[in-house]
Amino acid sequence: MNQSQTASNVTAPTQFLQIGEQRYAYRRFGSGSAHPLLLLQHFTGTLDNWDPAVTDSLASSREVILFDNAGVGRSTGQVPVTIAGMANHAFAFLDHLGVTTGDVLGFSLGGMIAQQMAQDRPSIFRRMILVGTAPRGGEDIMHLEKPTLAGHLADPSLRGYAVLQKLFFAPSESSQAAGAAFVQRLSQRKEDRDPVSGPEVAAAQVAAFRDWERFGGERFAELRRIRQPTLVVNGIHDEMIPIPNSYRLSQHLPNAVLMTYPDSGHGSLFQFHESFVRQANAFLASDSAWAPY
Amino acid sequence: MNQSQTASNVTAPTQFLQIGEQRYAYRRFGSGSAHPLLLLQHFTGTLDNWDPAVTDSLASSREVILFDNAGVGRSTGQVPVTIAGMANHAFAFLDHLGVTTGDVLGFSLGGMIAQQMAQDRPSIFRRMILVGTAPRGGEDIMHLEKPTLAGHLADPSLRGYAVLQKLFFAPSESSQAAGAAFVQRLSQRKEDRDPVSGPEVAAAQVAAFRDWERFGGERFAELRRIRQPTLVVNGIHDEMIPIPNSYRLSQHLPNAVLMTYPDSGHGSLFQFHESFVRQANAFLASDSAWAPY
Repeated sequence: MNQSQTASNVTAPTQFLQIGEQRYAYRRFGSGSAHPLLLLQHFTGTLDNWDPAVTDSLASSREVILFDNAGVGRSTGQVPVTIAGMANHAFAFLDHLGVTTGDVLGFSLGGMIAQQMAQDRPSIFRRMILVGTAPRGGEDIMHLEKPTLAGHLADPSLRGYAVLQKLFFAPSESSQAAGAAFVQRLSQRKEDRDPVSGPEVAAAQVAAFRDWERFGGERFAELRRIRQPTLVVNGIHDEMIPIPNSYRLSQHLPNAVLMTYPDSGHGSLFQFHESFVRQANAFLASDSAWAPY
Repeated sequence: MNQSQTASNVTAPTQFLQIGEQRYAYRRFGSGSAHPLLLLQHFTGTLDNWDPAVTDSLASSREVILFDNAGVGRSTGQVPVTIAGMANHAFAFLDHLGVTTGDVLGFSLGGMIAQQMAQDRPSIFRRMILVGTAPRGGEDIMHLEKPTLAGHLADPSLRGYAVLQKLFFAPSESSQAAGAAFVQRLSQRKEDRDPVSGPEVAAAQVAAFRDWERFGGERFAELRRIRQPTLVVNGIHDEMIPIPNSYRLSQHLPNAVLMTYPDSGHGSLFQFHESFVRQANAFLASDSAWAPY
């Protein structure tokens, strides 16, 4: 296959990186002169939860690197029960891949890992995109027992990606239609797929969310140390990690632009994928010391 | 002068529109195939408070129309004490100018007038940009008696535009430097200038702000009737009309994108004028029924 055929999350082969006992599954595709873009995935998400409408457009001007953290998809090991533990796996992966600095798109859980990494090693990221996520000490992070979420999770008629359409999109007709299109795009990949995450992955990641809600000392103070230009994005009706968390990020990060989308929930980047990729590309193309682009 | 020389708020001649006893001062410049863009000005602001870095770049692909509402600058009449009264003057002005539909950039007080106009006559605007403003029923709107504002207003060393540098920009060194550049740009126009607004203009406009803070029935419900694609913009440290007002706008308008800027206050559009104009141009260039661009 030539580069244009493989520069898609529908067809890119899954690769494996072995470090001692630990194996990481990943996909790496796209090209361009810009820095590689690391994509850090949401709660229970695998390589197959990245919408090709987003990944493939981003890959048209840079390499994108999709990554299964430990214990997720075909990566071995235990799922860490803290964000810091997940950040350590991401560092090990990037170090052995030889990536010393890049950009990052962290979605949901992945956005928390990205923040942790930027604090632990500021040189790792040049620019950051944080979508549908929360700062440490954020509020109402992935409380799956809430009626607005629990109903969908318990609905036996919703299996596989169908539950994502309910959880990631707003109840409006227009948002649900976008959700159906999203599910269809995810279903395009037929071979070389990751196994679906089981309850033990979910349990460990929920433990990490609960830990992330705790804070000591001045709330949000650690965000001041993240100096990278950052683009914060969320859907205004996000029920999984509600919008006040994005407000707090953009208020306490010293160098962040916030963009919110109407009529959308947690998966706003998939609902408005054309706009999101246009904005992300413009943001990443900037070399300014300031986030506005 | 040719078009390129006059397509600037530094040099565009002030024009006058007479309707019976009422005379309106305005400037109209720029060209392009897009809809004209009406600019509605902030508290006590005149035609000479529009930053040429913003107006001239916007005018490169459309006509922009700057307008002194009644009693402001060289427009005759009494300054209305309600936003609805100001909206009526803007309608009269546009009607006699023959503009039946256009886009609007409403800044601060001007953003309230734009919302009122969109509710009174939905066909008047195609797309709306609301910067540093608040919905009816908003909170902490232009309370000049607050210590953060009153100190600058009472400082005898701050005259003319110098007080704007303090009020419109954040206290950081970078924001104040942007404020100084803004003041310098406003000072480029040497002739055909508006008189500075006096205390009677301020008093009437403050009365309009106090009225705008009041609401009856369900708070923010009337925003649901504004269906235009809308771009809401604000500086994260705005002390004059604080950021929660922009959050409320983007949460209750059914079709709005919110963009917030770091390190900036009420005048974020002037501080990050290159980014603002780029975003505004992209937003206005879209023909989508949805705001995301």
